[in-house]
Amino acid sequence: MKQFFSVADVSNLSNIVDEALRLKQAPFAYEQLGKRRTLGLVFLNPSLRTRLSTQKAAMQLGMDVMVMNMDKDGWALETRDGVAMNGATVEHIREAAAVMGQYCDVLGIRSFPKLQDREEDYSEDLFRKFSSHCGVPVISLESATRHPLQSLADLITIREHWLEPRKPKVVMAWAPHIKALPQAVPNSFSEWMCRAQAEGMVDFTIAHPDGYALAESFTQGATIANTLDDALVGADFVYVKNWSSYNDYGQVLPVKEQWMLDNRKLAITNHANVMHCLPVRRDLELASEVLDGPQSLVIREAGNRVWAAQAVLKRMLDDN
Amino acid sequence: MKQFFSVADVSNLSNIVDEALRLKQAPFAYEQLGKRRTLGLVFLNPSLRTRLSTQKAAMQLGMDVMVMNMDKDGWALETRDGVAMNGATVEHIREAAAVMGQYCDVLGIRSFPKLQDREEDYSEDLFRKFSSHCGVPVISLESATRHPLQSLADLITIREHWLEPRKPKVVMAWAPHIKALPQAVPNSFSEWMCRAQAEGMVDFTIAHPDGYALAESFTQGATIANTLDDALVGADFVYVKNWSSYNDYGQVLPVKEQWMLDNRKLAITNHANVMHCLPVRRDLELASEVLDGPQSLVIREAGNRVWAAQAVLKRMLDDN
Amino acid sequence: MKQFFSVADVSNLSNIVDEALRLKQAPFAYEQLGKRRTLGLVFLNPSLRTRLSTQKAAMQLGMDVMVMNMDKDGWALETRDGVAMNGATVEHIREAAAVMGQYCDVLGIRSFPKLQDREEDYSEDLFRKFSSHCGVPVISLESATRHPLQSLADLITIREHWLEPRKPKVVMAWAPHIKALPQAVPNSFSEWMCRAQAEGMVDFTIAHPDGYALAESFTQGATIANTLDDALVGADFVYVKNWSSYNDYGQVLPVKEQWMLDNRKLAITNHANVMHCLPVRRDLELASEVLDGPQSLVIREAGNRVWAAQAVLKRMLDDN
Repeated sequence: MKQFFSVADVSNLSNIVDEALRLKQAPFAYEQLGKRRTLGLVFLNPSLRTRLSTQKAAMQLGMDVMVMNMDKDGWALETRDGVAMNGATVEHIREAAAVMGQYCDVLGIRSFPKLQDREEDYSEDLFRKFSSHCGVPVISLESATRHPLQSLADLITIREHWLEPRKPKVVMAWAPHIKALPQAVPNSFSEWMCRAQAEGMVDFTIAHPDGYALAESFTQGATIANTLDDALVGADFVYVKNWSSYNDYGQVLPVKEQWMLDNRKLAITNHANVMHCLPVRRDLELASEVLDGPQSLVIREAGNRVWAAQAVLKRMLDDN
Repeated sequence: MKQFFSVADVSNLSNIVDEALRLKQAPFAYEQLGKRRTLGLVFLNPSLRTRLSTQKAAMQLGMDVMVMNMDKDGWALETRDGVAMNGATVEHIREAAAVMGQYCDVLGIRSFPKLQDREEDYSEDLFRKFSSHCGVPVISLESATRHPLQSLADLITIREHWLEPRKPKVVMAWAPHIKALPQAVPNSFSEWMCRAQAEGMVDFTIAHPDGYALAESFTQGATIANTLDDALVGADFVYVKNWSSYNDYGQVLPVKEQWMLDNRKLAITNHANVMHCLPVRRDLELASEVLDGPQSLVIREAGNRVWAAQAVLKRMLDDN
Repeated sequence: MKQFFSVADVSNLSNIVDEALRLKQAPFAYEQLGKRRTLGLVFLNPSLRTRLSTQKAAMQLGMDVMVMNMDKDGWALETRDGVAMNGATVEHIREAAAVMGQYCDVLGIRSFPKLQDREEDYSEDLFRKFSSHCGVPVISLESATRHPLQSLADLITIREHWLEPRKPKVVMAWAPHIKALPQAVPNSFSEWMCRAQAEGMVDFTIAHPDGYALAESFTQGATIANTLDDALVGADFVYVKNWSSYNDYGQVLPVKEQWMLDNRKLAITNHANVMHCLPVRRDLELASEVLDGPQSLVIREAGNRVWAAQAVLKRMLDDN
C-alpha cells in the first residue's frame, strides 16, 4: 500500500478488517517489521485520538515516530503553484513534503478544510501535493474531505459487535452543533459503508435534515432519510455525527426538529449500538444518557483506532 | 500502586525513598519491566522538569512515552457534569480520559488551579474525574493542590544530604513573588514533611508572613512561625517557595518584612542546605548569592525528579 | 567533541565529511553506541529540518530523544546576570541549562537573534551561557550568528557532487526577501567555506549588493563580488541565501538590481549545482524554474542534514 487516503486504496474490506482484528489479538506479533523505520506524523491541525493511536500502532510495529505540529502561525505552507511567495507563507509544500520524505519511511498528514471555498477543499490539493512530492507512502490523518483511519476503525467496531448472520442496519444520523464542522468524517464513513454495503456487509442509511445532503460521490447506494425517527426504525448501529452543509457550503443551517439522539429516540431502534468518532459535545450532539449508557461503543471505537492504523502501517511496511 | 496523587498513596516513606536511591545507583536495572508498555503524559499547563524527568524515568524502565500538550485554546476540556456543551469546551474529560486510557498503560496529568474559586480548586475535580474515567493507573504531574513527584524528589534529596544520626530541622520558608502562584508545591511539601515527621525522619517548621497560612489539612503537626529569622535558627534545610494566600484565596498580600533568603539570613541557620523546586526568580524569591553558593541543592534536587518518577512508575508496573 | 558551535570545533574538515558519508552508507553501524543515552533538543524558535534530521540521526545511533519547545510566551528565559527577575522572564538560563543537563547526555539548542542589538546578538550570550551551565556536550541547532549543522551538511553535499580533480568554485549569492533574516546561515557557510578553501577543498566567492557585507571575521580569505553576474562566471556551486544587513544591523536595504537566480543567470555558470538551506520562498529568493530544474540539490542537501548531525553526535558519544 503506497497511499491510504480513501476507501479506494483498499481492495477488500473484509481482509483489512480481519487483519486489524488479528493485530488486536497479538499487538506485538510484527514488532520487528518496522525496526529501523521512521514514521513522521505531520499535523496542520490539532489531534488527540489520531495522533496517539497512530503513534501507538507504529511503536507496536517497532517503528520510531517523529511528530511535527505545524500550525498556521509557526510554519504556514504555500500550496499554490506559480505565485511569488512574498506574503505570509514561509515554505512551499513541494519542498516541505520532499524534505520530510528524506527523513521518514512513511508519512502521515492531517489538514482540515477551510470551509470557505468548496471547490478548493474538495480538490484535496494539499494532500495530493504532499503525497506526490514526498516520495514515500502517505497516510491521511484526516484531509479536507475524508478521515479514512476513522472509517476503518468504525468498520472494525461494527464487525466486532455484530455476531448475527443477517446484515446489520447502519444509520448515520446528523446531529446538531454550534460550530461549522467539516464533512470529512461523514463523507468518509459514508463511502466506507457504501462500499461495505456493496460487499454485502451492511445495509446503510443516512438521515439528515433538509439542506445537509452530502456530495453524491460519497453516498452512492445509501438510503437517504430526512426524518430521524423513521431512519432509526430497525437500526442496529447508529453513527452520530454533525456536519455543516455541503450545498450552502460550510454553513450551519437552522433545523427545527429535534435531531439529538436521546434514550427516547434510541428506543425506536433495534437496541442499536451507538457510535461517534469523538470529540463529542454532550447534550448538544448526543445525550449524556446515551453516551453513558450500555449501548454506547464510543470508547471502544476510539480504542480501535490503534488497530486500524496498525493494519494500514503494516501493509505499507510489507510493501516497502 | 494505582494512583500517585498525594502522600496518602505511599504506605511507607522510607521504603520508596530507598527504592528511588537504588534506582539512582542502577538506572537500567529494570529496563525490561516497562517493555511494550506506554506512558502517556498529558499537560494542560507548561512543564519543563516534570516532563523531561518523567519521560527519562519511563525510558529507563523501557517504556514508550507519548506526550500530549493540551492547552486551553487547542483542546479545552469540560469537567462539569450535566451541562449542555454549547460553549468553548470541545470535549468532556470523561471521554478524553477514557480514550487516553485506551492507548496508554499508565497516564500522567498536569493541571494547575485557576486560583479563582477555592472550593473548586480544592475539590481536585479535574484530577479525580480524569483518574476515575481513564481506567489505568494515574500519576499526578501537579494538580490544583499538590505536586507529589516534586515532594518525593525533595524527600530523596534531604535523605541523600543528611548523614547525621539526629533528625534534621527542615524549614519551609515563604518567599516573595510578583505573581499569584498556586499552593500546590508548598501544600504537597508540607504534607510529605508532616508525614516524614510522623515517621521520625525530620522536624518540620513552616515560616510565612501573616495571611499566608496554608490549609490546615496539609500542615498537621508542623511548627508554624511568622518570622523568618526565628524559624531559621538551627535549620538544616531551608525549602524556599512562594505561594499566594489560601485565606484571601489566590491573592498576593502586601508583606513589609524582608522574606528573601540571602547570605545574611542563611548565616542564621545551621549551615543549612537550600532547596527550591524551580523555576526560581533570582533576586526576587531567592538571592543569587545563595543560589550560586555552596549550600544550594537546587540542581541536584531537580535531578532527583528522575528517581522519584522512576520509583513511582516502577511500582505501577510491578502491580500491573 | 564537547561542543559543536562553529567550524573551530572541528579539527579537520575532510575527516568529518568522510565520516558523515560513511554513516550515510551504513546508518545503523553504530546503533549500540548511543543506547541508554539521551539527547535533549531545546527549541526557542521553530524548526523543521533541524529537528527532524537531528532526531533521526540520534535514533540511528540508538539514542533516546526528548524535544522541548520553549517559545517566548510559555517559558521566557532570563539571560542577564545581576538583575532581579521581577518582569516577564520565569527562569534563568543558569538553572534551565543545569537542569536539562541533569536529564540529558547531550543537549542541542536553537536560539535566533533578535536583530535589534548587534553587539548582544554577536556576543552569543545565550548559547555560551547555556553551554557553560549545562555540564554536558552541546550542539548548536542554530544560534544568533551561526548554523553549523547546516554548514557541515552543505560541505557534505558539495563533496558528494564534485568528482573532478580540480577545486570547485563555490559562490554564495545573496538573494532578495521581504523579511529581515539573520546572518547565521551565511556567516556559518562562509566560515566553513573559508576554512575549506584554506584546506584546499574549494575556491570561495561571496556575491552581495552594497550594504550587505558580512562581518569580516566570517569571511577571511573569501573573494567578494558586488555583481551577481560577474560572480557566477565559472561557478560550480551556487549557494543562494538572503540575509539582512550587518552594517545597518538587521535592516532590509533597497536593492535595485535583479538578484534572484533564474535560468538566465544560471546559464552564466559552469552548469552549477544550486543549493539553498531551505525554507525558500519561491520566485522571491529563487526562481521555481531553478528549484524544480535538474541542477537543484536542495532536497538532497536537506537530506544530508541527517549525516551531518549523526557525525557530530557520534563524536560526542565517542568522547563520552
